[in-house]
Amino acid sequence: MTDAPMTAQAASTATAGDILSRHLTAQAGAFLRALPLAVGEAGARPGTAAAVPTAGTADLLRAVRRVGGLLHTFGSLFEQAWAQESRTELRWLLNLLALEPGYVRRSARLLGALDSLSGSDPEGTGMLAGHAGAPKARALLDRQLTLARTRAHSTVLQELRSARLHALADRMTLLVGEAPLLESAGGRASTVLLPQAAAAFAALSATAQQLPLHRAATPYGGDGMRRLGAVPAARGAVDADAALAADDAPWARLRILVKRGRYALEVCGRSSSELDELDAVLARQQEAADAAVTAATAARTPRITPATAYVLGVVHADQRLEVESARYLVGRRWPELPPGPDGWLELPPEGWGHVAAPGTV
Amino acid sequence: MTDAPMTAQAASTATAGDILSRHLTAQAGAFLRALPLAVGEAGARPGTAAAVPTAGTADLLRAVRRVGGLLHTFGSLFEQAWAQESRTELRWLLNLLALEPGYVRRSARLLGALDSLSGSDPEGTGMLAGHAGAPKARALLDRQLTLARTRAHSTVLQELRSARLHALADRMTLLVGEAPLLESAGGRASTVLLPQAAAAFAALSATAQQLPLHRAATPYGGDGMRRLGAVPAARGAVDADAALAADDAPWARLRILVKRGRYALEVCGRSSSELDELDAVLARQQEAADAAVTAATAARTPRITPATAYVLGVVHADQRLEVESARYLVGRRWPELPPGPDGWLELPPEGWGHVAAPGTV
Repeated sequence: MTDAPMTAQAASTATAGDILSRHLTAQAGAFLRALPLAVGEAGARPGTAAAVPTAGTADLLRAVRRVGGLLHTFGSLFEQAWAQESRTELRWLLNLLALEPGYVRRSARLLGALDSLSGSDPEGTGMLAGHAGAPKARALLDRQLTLARTRAHSTVLQELRSARLHALADRMTLLVGEAPLLESAGGRASTVLLPQAAAAFAALSATAQQLPLHRAATPYGGDGMRRLGAVPAARGAVDADAALAADDAPWARLRILVKRGRYALEVCGRSSSELDELDAVLARQQEAADAAVTAATAARTPRITPATAYVLGVVHADQRLEVESARYLVGRRWPELPPGPDGWLELPPEGWGHVAAPGTV
Repeated sequence: MTDAPMTAQAASTATAGDILSRHLTAQAGAFLRALPLAVGEAGARPGTAAAVPTAGTADLLRAVRRVGGLLHTFGSLFEQAWAQESRTELRWLLNLLALEPGYVRRSARLLGALDSLSGSDPEGTGMLAGHAGAPKARALLDRQLTLARTRAHSTVLQELRSARLHALADRMTLLVGEAPLLESAGGRASTVLLPQAAAAFAALSATAQQLPLHRAATPYGGDGMRRLGAVPAARGAVDADAALAADDAPWARLRILVKRGRYALEVCGRSSSELDELDAVLARQQEAADAAVTAATAARTPRITPATAYVLGVVHADQRLEVESARYLVGRRWPELPPGPDGWLELPPEGWGHVAAPGTV
């Protein structure tokens, strides 16, 4: 692994620190360019938001995810306290920025599902077509998600002007100049970085192996509705909420590890369309799981009619079926992916000096 | 096809009429033996019934299905008015006898689904575990299905003593002695029977080709919940009930044709485990579709709580998912089945003189 061929002259002389600094400089620069745009965008839309984050917010999210991922995967090469604090602050901003676009996407997903389930077009009629509860359930979901989004928006507006964010921006400014690297980062890039990237993929494989991927690969296995939380940690869950939380957690963890793997590959000058696709499927899995919770919660709203509750039950099941369908895809694809942690890194390197084009997510 | 090899001396000399008479005598005999048992059984259980029909009723159903199937497939060899009337009367008895076991199976299916969805065991927790509406929905379904079953039982008890049933028994007695065959039944068995059996399989293939089997073979294609009635006849259905009815009808028809094919093979001394399995999967498909309607109907009961309605929505979706899952199996298996009408009949004949062992369904 340490003997991986180098494709450019620069590659053979670059240290691990050189490579990491170059990546972090690029991402911190992207952060600082996107931040004022994101703040401006947030202020400019008092009540509405698109289904995807606007350009500045999207760029900011991209940079935040990558800097955080690199500080995790290659964390031992940085001054420890600084890296740890930076990751905490980046995670805070990530959660903050993801909140509003998350509600917008969830709203699009749930209202889209309801429209599909209650619609009638040449592609087929939904099982709720003509049902009296459908418009009421739609209005209820729309109202609750708009409220949640509006609240999230206020929080974002407030925090984007906070001292905490200014301090984080200062950290990123520092990173553009000079990352606080340890002496160990002075070693050859391939010798130092590859084992750490390999460790990220080892963590990914280990987490995947704890999931019921084989069962998920059997269509209609019931993992979405009847057999939640069949992962060991969830056994004995006494109610569906606890089982769902225990069930979804390892899948959410898998997605985090897939993202870390993607960003580690970028540092190594590589990319993997399989990993990008896996990330997208896991995103769908998680959004459907979150949307299912929203439908179940909406059904507990006091004083709704039985017809509304009935429709929300169907929507809840429909979203759990989406969860199962996404897991099916993961279960089918996983065995075809590069085996073991080294497999991912054995792709032909495009050169160590190369800073990968900004990823799309 | 008319040159199919004969395995026994008897076979080469048997006429079509000989073969049909032998089968009809056997089945009509089974009918007459099972009838008093079935009547006795019906009278003996005033309030309870097992999940499967009791022995006498099951035997009676088997014989009724087979005689009816043969009178359809080989109908042109019988005196027309007699065959037509007999089929009408047999269908009446079939519907009558199937009613009560149908409700018992539907009750087992729906309560089992609810228990699975609201249960918590090592195999996994259901998405309704701990939900306040689950016991109420269970009690509601149990009450409504018990009532339906009790009503069906009374109807059966009454009709089993009717003049109409006595007249049908007289018809079966006639059949044990001599079936009213036309002169054309005097031809060689292979020359006369094979084309008629082939026509039954041609009808089966034609119906299958009108179904969206290719799409059904794609897991999670949404045929159960979001894309009902994508068959041509259902396009433009304005509500879910109409779409469901239009959607389920051709699948129910496929099942009838599969059964006719099975019984035609029996007359030809052949059998097909693939066809038996297909019949079983289609039975599951239809029972799930019927159970879904029951759940949707129960949700319209006045004065139920929203929690109960919500649970019924989940159960409805769960049963539609079962429909989709069964159709997926059909979609996957169909292309592997013998191609064209002749394919089924090209199986090695076990001899024309042979009366196949009574089928299981």
